[in-house]
Amino acid sequence: MNPIDKLIKALSKFPGVGSKSAARIAYHIMRDKTENVSDLVNAIANVKKKIKLCSECFNLTEDDPCYICSNPRRNNKSVCIVEDPQDASAIESTGTFKGVYHILHGAISPLDGVGPENIKVKELVQRLEKNAIKELIVATNPTIEGEATAHYITKIARPYKIRLSRIAFGIPFGGDIEYTDKSTLSRALESRLEIKE
Amino acid sequence: MNPIDKLIKALSKFPGVGSKSAARIAYHIMRDKTENVSDLVNAIANVKKKIKLCSECFNLTEDDPCYICSNPRRNNKSVCIVEDPQDASAIESTGTFKGVYHILHGAISPLDGVGPENIKVKELVQRLEKNAIKELIVATNPTIEGEATAHYITKIARPYKIRLSRIAFGIPFGGDIEYTDKSTLSRALESRLEIKE
Repeated sequence: MNPIDKLIKALSKFPGVGSKSAARIAYHIMRDKTENVSDLVNAIANVKKKIKLCSECFNLTEDDPCYICSNPRRNNKSVCIVEDPQDASAIESTGTFKGVYHILHGAISPLDGVGPENIKVKELVQRLEKNAIKELIVATNPTIEGEATAHYITKIARPYKIRLSRIAFGIPFGGDIEYTDKSTLSRALESRLEIKE
Repeated sequence: MNPIDKLIKALSKFPGVGSKSAARIAYHIMRDKTENVSDLVNAIANVKKKIKLCSECFNLTEDDPCYICSNPRRNNKSVCIVEDPQDASAIESTGTFKGVYHILHGAISPLDGVGPENIKVKELVQRLEKNAIKELIVATNPTIEGEATAHYITKIARPYKIRLSRIAFGIPFGGDIEYTDKSTLSRALESRLEIKE
């Protein structure tokens, strides 16, 4: 295989990069005369060298504990459980959550051979044992795997007598009822909130 | 800026990679435990080291002249002019063209400050002077820039008294007249072919 095809193949291994975009990026890399390509290579080397998991919340971080866990102004009694670092980053970008996170690094999926022992559930139990956690917000995805994981976590967290909640699912802001899929719509109806005067 | 954000920024510089896909790829790179990431880094280093321009057609190649120009079974009297290596690669994948290419590495675009002297036009004139070229097929894109380039090339090639053609533009195969844009449709009408019995 020639170097161009090798590069296209290597690029197409990444999520969301099909063979056409891989080819486009490859030709861009070959023609590039700026620092973009060496910046990328350095950035990859850097994350591979410097990024580790926070020993508290298991988020990706340069410093351990991460900047969220080590921030004294964050409420470490309120823990938001997410599947992936990206989910924590999305919630973080809203600026509304003042607690800390627990990254599971996956969701329970028997079909893919992923059980509770393959994600950071044991570590969650350790945090529940060790800390005075008051609230768990389960923010796993509204998928079969995410729901199964939420269910499992609810079950193991119940004995600790803490506040347990699941983030709300419904029609997205700016969405249209007409074009909302049936599952979302039925979730939105089930989770309806009383309108107070 | 932390290493994760640096990586996301470096990735989003590439064509077709928005900030969301850059983040997805970045998290994939950080979590990746396979050889994919080192394969990519090696593939980038390899193309940067090994790939050069063919001194005949200016296509990207490992060997000079490229495998097309050095193939004695290709008709080097018929030259297809394209803007970019990707275009040559797309035409090559059809398997119908048996001639050779000339890669301009761009198109004339006065608004972007790209004139004939910035693309491989001078080199095309040298080929016309040197070789016994019989036919030029102008396969620049159906854009304002591509059309301007085609026009310019036609003008400079005319004195050589060779066969000059422009690839056909019309409704794409499998397309739908109802949903075809006006410019394509008018091109398709102008370029209509007589139906022979």
